[in-house]
Formats: sequence, structure tokens, C-alpha cells
Amino acid sequence: MFKRKNLLGLQNLSREEITFLLDTAVPMKDIISRPIKKVPTLRGKTVVNLFYENSTRTRSSFELAAKYLSADSINISSSSSSVAKGESLYDTARTIQSLGADAIILRHPMAGSPRLLARSVNAAVINAGDGAHEHPSQALLDLFTVRERMGRLAGLRVAIVGDVLHSRVARSDIWGFTRMGAEVSVCGPPTLIPPGLDRMGVRVFHRLEEALPDANVIIMLRIQKERQQQGLFPSLREYAILYGLNRRRLALAKSGALVLHPGPMNRGVEISADIADGTSAVIEEQVTNGVAVRMALLYLLAGGGERHENDY
Amino acid sequence: MFKRKNLLGLQNLSREEITFLLDTAVPMKDIISRPIKKVPTLRGKTVVNLFYENSTRTRSSFELAAKYLSADSINISSSSSSVAKGESLYDTARTIQSLGADAIILRHPMAGSPRLLARSVNAAVINAGDGAHEHPSQALLDLFTVRERMGRLAGLRVAIVGDVLHSRVARSDIWGFTRMGAEVSVCGPPTLIPPGLDRMGVRVFHRLEEALPDANVIIMLRIQKERQQQGLFPSLREYAILYGLNRRRLALAKSGALVLHPGPMNRGVEISADIADGTSAVIEEQVTNGVAVRMALLYLLAGGGERHENDY
Amino acid sequence: MFKRKNLLGLQNLSREEITFLLDTAVPMKDIISRPIKKVPTLRGKTVVNLFYENSTRTRSSFELAAKYLSADSINISSSSSSVAKGESLYDTARTIQSLGADAIILRHPMAGSPRLLARSVNAAVINAGDGAHEHPSQALLDLFTVRERMGRLAGLRVAIVGDVLHSRVARSDIWGFTRMGAEVSVCGPPTLIPPGLDRMGVRVFHRLEEALPDANVIIMLRIQKERQQQGLFPSLREYAILYGLNRRRLALAKSGALVLHPGPMNRGVEISADIADGTSAVIEEQVTNGVAVRMALLYLLAGGGERHENDY
Repeated sequence: MFKRKNLLGLQNLSREEITFLLDTAVPMKDIISRPIKKVPTLRGKTVVNLFYENSTRTRSSFELAAKYLSADSINISSSSSSVAKGESLYDTARTIQSLGADAIILRHPMAGSPRLLARSVNAAVINAGDGAHEHPSQALLDLFTVRERMGRLAGLRVAIVGDVLHSRVARSDIWGFTRMGAEVSVCGPPTLIPPGLDRMGVRVFHRLEEALPDANVIIMLRIQKERQQQGLFPSLREYAILYGLNRRRLALAKSGALVLHPGPMNRGVEISADIADGTSAVIEEQVTNGVAVRMALLYLLAGGGERHENDY
Repeated sequence: MFKRKNLLGLQNLSREEITFLLDTAVPMKDIISRPIKKVPTLRGKTVVNLFYENSTRTRSSFELAAKYLSADSINISSSSSSVAKGESLYDTARTIQSLGADAIILRHPMAGSPRLLARSVNAAVINAGDGAHEHPSQALLDLFTVRERMGRLAGLRVAIVGDVLHSRVARSDIWGFTRMGAEVSVCGPPTLIPPGLDRMGVRVFHRLEEALPDANVIIMLRIQKERQQQGLFPSLREYAILYGLNRRRLALAKSGALVLHPGPMNRGVEISADIADGTSAVIEEQVTNGVAVRMALLYLLAGGGERHENDY
Repeated sequence: MFKRKNLLGLQNLSREEITFLLDTAVPMKDIISRPIKKVPTLRGKTVVNLFYENSTRTRSSFELAAKYLSADSINISSSSSSVAKGESLYDTARTIQSLGADAIILRHPMAGSPRLLARSVNAAVINAGDGAHEHPSQALLDLFTVRERMGRLAGLRVAIVGDVLHSRVARSDIWGFTRMGAEVSVCGPPTLIPPGLDRMGVRVFHRLEEALPDANVIIMLRIQKERQQQGLFPSLREYAILYGLNRRRLALAKSGALVLHPGPMNRGVEISADIADGTSAVIEEQVTNGVAVRMALLYLLAGGGERHENDY
């Protein structure tokens, strides 16, 4: 059972709740593999994508998830919205709810804004990325992908490599994989690893060669190209040399290890082309599974079947 | 009956026509309050939102009104359109009609452009705001909201407060409320009140304390923040002091007076937070009623049932 | 029969294939002339408009064609997409396919990019304009319009006037009309006519007075207003004098000659207002026929009925 009104993050979800979400996504994936990938489940429900940061990938995934379930959906992006006129998130949220929204998908640069939104509206709120805080639907699709491929999550060793400090994907992945009984380690330059991870039960490495052995799953994070321009260490070139995943390094991991990446990839920087296109990579499956996971979220949260507990 | 092809403004509508539009919106509001807010009424009809000015609020409202009635809708905004290539409004309109549009929703900075458009196409044209001229669907939702709450429009006293000079909302409200038998007064700094309002039967006040007594309905207009930057009098701070609606001032109005605002609000400027969130405010109801009113307009104008008279 | 997976251009299509595409568009045009212009043919299919250049006209046409066939469609434009983050076209394409796309409509500034895309995905790829290379759906709608009006294509004399050098429309029209047995001539200033057209069987003129006599069909190309700013010869004013189509010049052509223009028009430059609005012009019909042609393309390529040959 999943009795929440919102999905704000994975930090507070139980193992049972995460399992239920993943289980619900299984029949959804079946729907999108059919020749006619459309069911009437959410007909007459309204999904609003409220994006204060650009993201074609995540926005398209939610938009198609809504359409495959026959929901109506509209997109509101900050560039064209009342935001430019200085309206508060609270007032924007109340307006969107009054237009008839059953679910609001929010991407926002400020950590915690989905919680504020969830308090302001009766509609379901799904966090599609808030600052450097959480990006729970991305972590759920990572969990789904690994579980589908490996048959389990408990006991797996997961290495997250890259700019963990600024990554909401890494944060949600850490909560999700540890909650499901996997062992998580992170690896990156000291300037890009936040303090306190050991208290979350996460091991920290600064050399890729130390992090990879024993890994069943390797999650490569996207490195921000902007770092190069700002003259930060490591530069993209240094980063590629020190932390780029290539064939030689992948060989250090467990046999059959999976390689994940949230996209968009910087080929030749954090991941070599032969790995990105190789048999270990499940990067395109992640995209498909992302639609399935988001269909499950919309089905459970926007379906309006029963009254859910509020959980902000 | 409403036998027009277009809705260009309220100035030329009769009391019977306005009443018919409001009556048609009543069952529409019923539709959007259902768990499955979708009817097949406009299936196979095409609604084009043609916006030469940004407006998330109005565009989303029309877009969802179209979807709730099962019409197809697409959005064309000036930033991405042939407009950038210098195409005339006439040619754009003919093209949109040739694509299959049954109704065109136009927002344009030039007063009178919806009339030009209506002359150019067979499709229904709905004015979604033209310069400082009219914004009839906003006024209709104001009328709907007040009528629903008060049970009548005739004999009510309506005070419109703020930058009346630049407000197409104010202009349409004045035409609509006076036509329906309400008494309208306006209040604002002399620089923001247009001349000649007395000839329309509208009383003019420059002090809020004089305008509020006896008011059953208070419509607070949005003040343009740009005024501050341009160093105009009054500044935002002065405006808030002289014309901001707060609890003390609201107490001057009739008992049970309603507070309306077209949004987005500048909290702390034209309206205090406690009023915006208080029991007198019907600002969120206005948003919901706006969808209902726009459904009624699309139903009557894009339905294609019978041949309508042209009315530009 | 049309057994291809993609429509990348007209250069390699046979007369039989083009005829089949045009024949398929005939019943599609019938659908969009009905009061309820919607059929369930592509229900559960997904069409993605991937536009790296702005084009309201072409994008809206494909978007409505998809909706009239009940397909789901989403728009991805370069301004808001991962493109800004430097993702390769290959990775973007693989992601879009993984989201569930059955057809991808691509507009891209680089000639040949649709071919690259077609090689990268199983989804159907339709070229909506690639650099100065081809714009096949535009040429198909020109062919459809002329065939419908004239009853045939073979033996007609077609004059294409303007900036042929930079025009993908001209290039696709040349391939299409010559393949269908029409005689094509081009006319424009020497700086705007590419070399080698005679090898394609195309006659070249530099004076409009020489090109128009005997023409059954005149296709006026849009002149780029940017030329004016760059100080190139001819300027817009010179161009209008030398190559603008007006009543006097149209009289040189065959009786009953048709005037086509891909839009948006520069009235008073390449075409005078009386010609644009006159009885010879079929410019608005082109727009309607464009929707019909694109419905035919989506029906044949995104329908998923049988396995098609790949054709890149």
C-alpha cells in the first residue's frame, strides 16, 4: 500500500512503500510495450508540469506518462509564467489547483519547495527535482532498473561516482538503495563529496580504482561542464582521466555489473563511448523504466480513488 | 440565446446575452467538480491559443477548458512563431484557420486586433486581452463569481480599485457590471484614472476611504511593479499606503462584501495577505469559475451547431 | 505501396511511391473537412516533434495531424532541451525512442541529420527540414495541391522563383516535380541560384519575364529579410522590383496558372497583395493540404502495421 498524498523524496519512505511503488510500475511497463500504449485509467484527471528549471527529459517523461494513462496535462515553465511577474509559489500553486489540477509535478531550484507546495494544495505533489535535495522519481527508476535486471536489491553493492555534492539524483539514490538493503559507496574528488555520508552508512572513496572492486552496480553522475569555464579543479580533462569510466576500469567491477547514468551523458568525460553503448549499460532502459515509474506514481497519487494521508 | 460568431468584448453585449453566457457556465462548473472532469462535447474541434503576450494564467485556463470538453488544442506564442519573421496578423490568422481551427483565442498588445482577426476568418474568435481595451472572459468570470455568491447582480455596488487607466479587466468589468444593473465606482490616483468615466455612469473616487463605504463587491486590480522602476508616482510603497486593501479598510465596506482580484497578486501592495487569504476573498473561486466560463464560450462558439451571425 | 521506415527526402522516392503518398492524403483531407475531424487510427501511438529551429507553421501542422489521428504528441525544442546541455543528436534520439516514440519529426539546421537520426532509432523519422537540403513534406503538399487543382502533374511547367540556393523547399520541389514528369525551371539572381541544376534537367533563368511564359505553376519562395541587414545584393527593394510577382507579370504565365508560396509571405516583396489574395493563389489550400499530407505520412510511418524496410 502507498497511502501518501505526495512524493517529496525517498528519505522518509519505508522499504514496503518503495517495494509497492516498484511493483506498481511493473504492469505499467507492460502497457508501454504494447502496440497501443494507452489505457483510460486517468481519464478526466489533470496533471500540471510546473517547471522552474528546464528539463526536457524529466518533463517529457511525466508528460507521456500522463498521456499513456489518458490524463490531461499542461506544461507551465517559469520563462513564460506569472513567476516572471513575481507571484509567490504559494499563489501559483493555489491557482493551479483551482484550475483543476489533480497532480502537480514540480521542478524548482530551491530545496524544500515541493514540501511548501504540498502544504498549500490538496492536489498530489511529485518532486521532480528540488535544488540539490532530492529527485525521487529518478532514484525509483534506478531501483526499478536494477531490480528488474538483478532480481533483487538487498545485498547489492552500488557505487555512485562523480559530483555527489551537487547531485539530487545521488542523494535520492543513497536513500533508496540503502533503504532497500543495498550497500552504497560514493567516489569523487574530495571537493565534490559532501561531509557526513559515513553517518548514512555510505563508504567514501576518492580513487575510482578503490571504489569499483566488488561493485554490482555503478551509477555515473553527470559532470557539469560549467566547472571547466569556472576554472575549478578538477577540470573536465582531469576529471575524465581520474574518474571517467572506461573498459579497463569497468573490468575491476563484479562480473555482470550494471552501468547507469541519469543522462544527458558527456561522452568521453564521465563515461567512454564504448561503455555507454556496451552491454553493461542500461541507460536507455532507465529512460523507458522512468516512464513506467512515473505512470505508477500518477496512478497512485492522481487517481483519486481513496483519501490519502498527508505526508509533508 | 447567443448567436454571435465571436466574443470581442462586453461593450456590445445585451443583458440577455450576458445572462445566457453565465447560465451556460453553470453546468460547466458542475462538470469540473466531478471526479472525471471530461465530456466529449467538442471532440473533433480544434482550439488554437494565439498569444502575442505571455499569460500562463489565461492560456492555461483556456487550454484546460478545451481539454475538459475533449477539443484538440495547440498553443502558438509570438516568441516561437512566424511573428518573429514579420508575418502579418491577417496571414497568421488565415494560416491558423487553414490548419483546421474552429476557435482562435487571441491575446495581443494592440487594442482592436481581435476584431481584425474576426473579420479575417470563419473560425470563432475570443478576445483574451487586447491592449488596454477589453478582456471579456475575465469580466465574465467576475460576473459569474459575484452572481453565484450574491445571488444577483442588479443593484449591487461594485468598487474597482487601482490602475484603471491601463486595465482591460477594469474596462470589461465596467461594461459588464453596469449592463447587468450594478452600480460601479472606480478608485485610484488621478494619474491612473481615465477621463470620461462619468459618462459611462461610473463614479470616480481618489481616496479609498470614500470609495469603500456601501460597496458590496471590491475588485482590486494588479499594480504594475514596473512603475517603481520608472520612478512614477505613486511608487509601490506609496501605493500600498494609499490604496492597499487591508482589514481596517475592508471594514468600511458593506457586511459580507466580496473581494476579487484577477491575479497574479502583489501581496503587501494592493492587497494584504490576511485579506487575500481571508473569508471575504473569492480569488481562487474566480480561477475555477474562469475555466467554467471559458468552457461555456468554447461550447457556444466552437461547437459548430448552427450558423451564427457575424458580429465584428 | 510505401514500405519505407522514414521520409528523409524526395530525391530517392519513385514516382509510384510519391503517387501512393498523395493518394493516401486524399481520404485524410476528407477527414479534416468533416465537422468532427478526428479518427482513432493512431490511438496509442506517440509522435515527437523535435525542432532545433523554430517553425510554428510546420510544427503546428504535424501536431494537429497527429491529434486528428488520435496520436499522442509532445514537442521538444532546442531552446528548452538537453541540447543546451550539449547532448549529441544520437543520444537525444535514443532517449526519445526509449520514451516510447513511434515517429520523430525532426527539423535541424544541419543537412543530413535526419539520416543520422534514422540510423539511430527504430522509430520512423520524418524530415521536417534539414539545413538547405530537403523539406519533403512541404514538397508533397505542393504536389498534392497542384495535382488536385490541375488533375495531373506530368507535362506541367513549374517555375520556382527566388532564393533557390538556400531553399530546402526548392530542392525538394525540384526532385518531386521532375520525378512526377513535370518540367521545372528556376528563376532568381545569379547569386541565389546554385550551379549544376541543368544536370537535374532544370532550366535556369535570371529574368522573371523569361521564366514565366508557359508556366502552369509558379512557386514563389520566401526571401530572407536578413539579407537587407547584411547589405547583400539584391536588397529587398531591388528584389521586389526585379523578382516580385505582381498582376502584370502573372499575366505572362499560362491562363489558369497557379501561384504557390510556402509561407510566411513578405507581401510587397516577393509577392504583391493582390496576387496573394487573388484567385490564382492557392496558398491557404497549401496549408490545409499540408495537414492532410502529414496525416498520410504519420498513418503510413507511425501506424506500426507491418514491418517496413529501412531506407536511410
